[in-house]
Amino acid sequence: MAIFLRAAALSALLPASMASAEPQTVSWDIVAGLTTEIGPRLAGSPAEARARDWAAARLRKLGFSNVAIEPFTVRSYVRGEDRARLTAPYEQPLAITALGYSGTTPDKGIEAELVYFPTMDALRAAPAGSLAGKIAFIDHAMKANQDGSGYGPFGAARRQGPALAAQKGAIGTVIRSVGTDSHRVPHTGVTTFPEGVTAIPAGAVSNPDADLIARVAKQGKPMRLSLMLTGRTTENLPSGNVVADLVGRDPSLPPILVACHLDSWDIGTGAIDDGAGCAIVTDAALRAQRDGKALRTIRVLWAGSEEIGVFGGAAYAEKHGSEPHALAMESDFGAGRIWKVEMKLGAQNKPMAERISATLAAMGIVTGRDMAGGGADVGAIIAKQKLAVIDLAQDGTDYFNLHHTADDTLDKVDPALLEQNVEAWTQVLSIVANEPGPIAAE
Amino acid sequence: MAIFLRAAALSALLPASMASAEPQTVSWDIVAGLTTEIGPRLAGSPAEARARDWAAARLRKLGFSNVAIEPFTVRSYVRGEDRARLTAPYEQPLAITALGYSGTTPDKGIEAELVYFPTMDALRAAPAGSLAGKIAFIDHAMKANQDGSGYGPFGAARRQGPALAAQKGAIGTVIRSVGTDSHRVPHTGVTTFPEGVTAIPAGAVSNPDADLIARVAKQGKPMRLSLMLTGRTTENLPSGNVVADLVGRDPSLPPILVACHLDSWDIGTGAIDDGAGCAIVTDAALRAQRDGKALRTIRVLWAGSEEIGVFGGAAYAEKHGSEPHALAMESDFGAGRIWKVEMKLGAQNKPMAERISATLAAMGIVTGRDMAGGGADVGAIIAKQKLAVIDLAQDGTDYFNLHHTADDTLDKVDPALLEQNVEAWTQVLSIVANEPGPIAAE
Repeated sequence: MAIFLRAAALSALLPASMASAEPQTVSWDIVAGLTTEIGPRLAGSPAEARARDWAAARLRKLGFSNVAIEPFTVRSYVRGEDRARLTAPYEQPLAITALGYSGTTPDKGIEAELVYFPTMDALRAAPAGSLAGKIAFIDHAMKANQDGSGYGPFGAARRQGPALAAQKGAIGTVIRSVGTDSHRVPHTGVTTFPEGVTAIPAGAVSNPDADLIARVAKQGKPMRLSLMLTGRTTENLPSGNVVADLVGRDPSLPPILVACHLDSWDIGTGAIDDGAGCAIVTDAALRAQRDGKALRTIRVLWAGSEEIGVFGGAAYAEKHGSEPHALAMESDFGAGRIWKVEMKLGAQNKPMAERISATLAAMGIVTGRDMAGGGADVGAIIAKQKLAVIDLAQDGTDYFNLHHTADDTLDKVDPALLEQNVEAWTQVLSIVANEPGPIAAE
Repeated sequence: MAIFLRAAALSALLPASMASAEPQTVSWDIVAGLTTEIGPRLAGSPAEARARDWAAARLRKLGFSNVAIEPFTVRSYVRGEDRARLTAPYEQPLAITALGYSGTTPDKGIEAELVYFPTMDALRAAPAGSLAGKIAFIDHAMKANQDGSGYGPFGAARRQGPALAAQKGAIGTVIRSVGTDSHRVPHTGVTTFPEGVTAIPAGAVSNPDADLIARVAKQGKPMRLSLMLTGRTTENLPSGNVVADLVGRDPSLPPILVACHLDSWDIGTGAIDDGAGCAIVTDAALRAQRDGKALRTIRVLWAGSEEIGVFGGAAYAEKHGSEPHALAMESDFGAGRIWKVEMKLGAQNKPMAERISATLAAMGIVTGRDMAGGGADVGAIIAKQKLAVIDLAQDGTDYFNLHHTADDTLDKVDPALLEQNVEAWTQVLSIVANEPGPIAAE
């Protein structure tokens, strides 16, 4: 439709952003500030460095102590130009994003036959050498669910697919985005080339583009793809964690560690992944002190370089691995409603666990029967110290519509759900940070 | 979230596109074929020429007679590179698309102060010369509704905003997309520079990007924008209409004209705008004959170059303006459910109108009280011949989520709703194409 001739009321001409006041909470300020004043902050980039400075300044202003930027260096990916188009049997531009650690095409790209594989298993079954000089396309269909458990199996196409194709001779790999949306916003994320496998250019097209390729493949006509992914894997880039404490009444007690990650993929602004997580854990830590200082220190870790290999979590465990910790928690699955709590707590902490369950039950949050896992950035310290863990599980039904895409922007954070997260976290931190006895996983 | 460690069932690994068979209807074949085998088909482009050949071949294959490509030339826009980023007070890449007939930046772009205007009225109030050397940003907030009536007033920022800013000295204009979605897929469309106003570069950013600019503007810090829009307005490009007939039992009776447009914006694949329209009118025309040939000829017009100025509709009226027509209809508002019929029919056609109302009422379609308008491509012939008109109004609540974006792809067409459209059109065509008496608007 080009021109619509009907008249209409000229009401409501104010922009949406002006129509309603923004929430006046620490959590909203953090996620709005990070996405607005920093935006994309890829691991190892100058933007991630600006984000560290922003974070340290913000945490100091909020009253945190011992605010420290703890630097480390990383091997990361520096994006270039990302382009792809079908050139046969039909000319069709495709929406593509390079995967992290993709190989690099010449500036003018490459063009080759495109071979369609409906699944990773189909690619596995391809004979050795059969992809020589060709580009592999790996299709699959991630389905939305609440707990994100599809990310493991469906993400395999992204994590291992390009290397597998390379081992069969492919000169490039394109995958269907690991995502559940239907927009022309492809999903990035890292891919891995094991020792001895030379990196080939690897990208993900959006779901509508993958649908198109699947339809063309079904026609049985040979397909050709032009692919240009000029980014480069780069060594020794500066990254770092930001660590800060709210010192408890008894600083001799092991602290409660709450984590999120500061870095984001570069194509979005890191609102749900993971600005919201930093907002939630930080606001909750502050609120847990609002009725008087908590007994234990609460330490926040805004980790760097999570997206490209959880380097911040490893650096934290290395630097702080000899300091005692009481318990670890992490928020890194968006800003959906918390619906379940999982706990890894020893028998002596059963009364505390029961208080947590009862408090959260009053908020409509159930207690699960699985073992709590913690999350990527607290994974190393948990493993090293066999720490107690509590997970507050978020509803991630919509998470993979946005995850690692350009669509990860502030408007996707629902202030009411963000507040529900902060309140659930506050309840849990208020209990665990005031626990005088030992806290342990077993 | 980077890596999710939970195990999950490996079921449902088949791609979505393979999981269900595609509908076996003419309408689905047309919209799937056009989007898959042609894709983007901007007015005046080689792709639009391929689309004409595709359309003529398809209509012949479907049994249409007098299939003709009727060429004309147009002034159109040839897209170049589209980029924008805030450079102050924060570095932020923006998702932008050039508007049709935008002015052209140097290859390296321009950079200038960005001045925020919440509404067109605010821009109107800016003093003469106040935008000299600056780039204007026009915000606004289109709201979703069923009948698309917001497109008139909210679209003004796109149609007239850049020229207005140019008249006040601006060297570029960026607008919030005229759209109701929240994805990083900006909405294009034409803008107009009247005689005597030199075209300046003009683009639209996505709604999340416009939200960002609005938040930064609210902070009161000076903004700067880097803008690169290297496309060019180009004269004398080849375009054309495709016209075809299903000849009636009495070819001497004036035909029923049913229209859609074949061209699409170049950033999507023209599924809902307007592949679906061509699919609907063509399938319905064929079905109206399924119980024996209709009395009157049904003529389909797949118009060219609608998006850039309704040139196909004008060319049709010029070429066929002296041939009698009975009645005109058009489908160009997506593939949402038909919920209302509007008719412009004279008193002598009251019995026919009542039959149409009764038939559609049985499908849950109400009869409206407005005057039928027809649509863009039949506008000229209706005006010239004062034709009778019937509008089958589609639910367009979601239409401006997709309209003129990269997201206008086949997956957005719901086969069940497409079929509802075809059936409603079939009912109406079966009645009007078998009307033996005169059909007239008055």
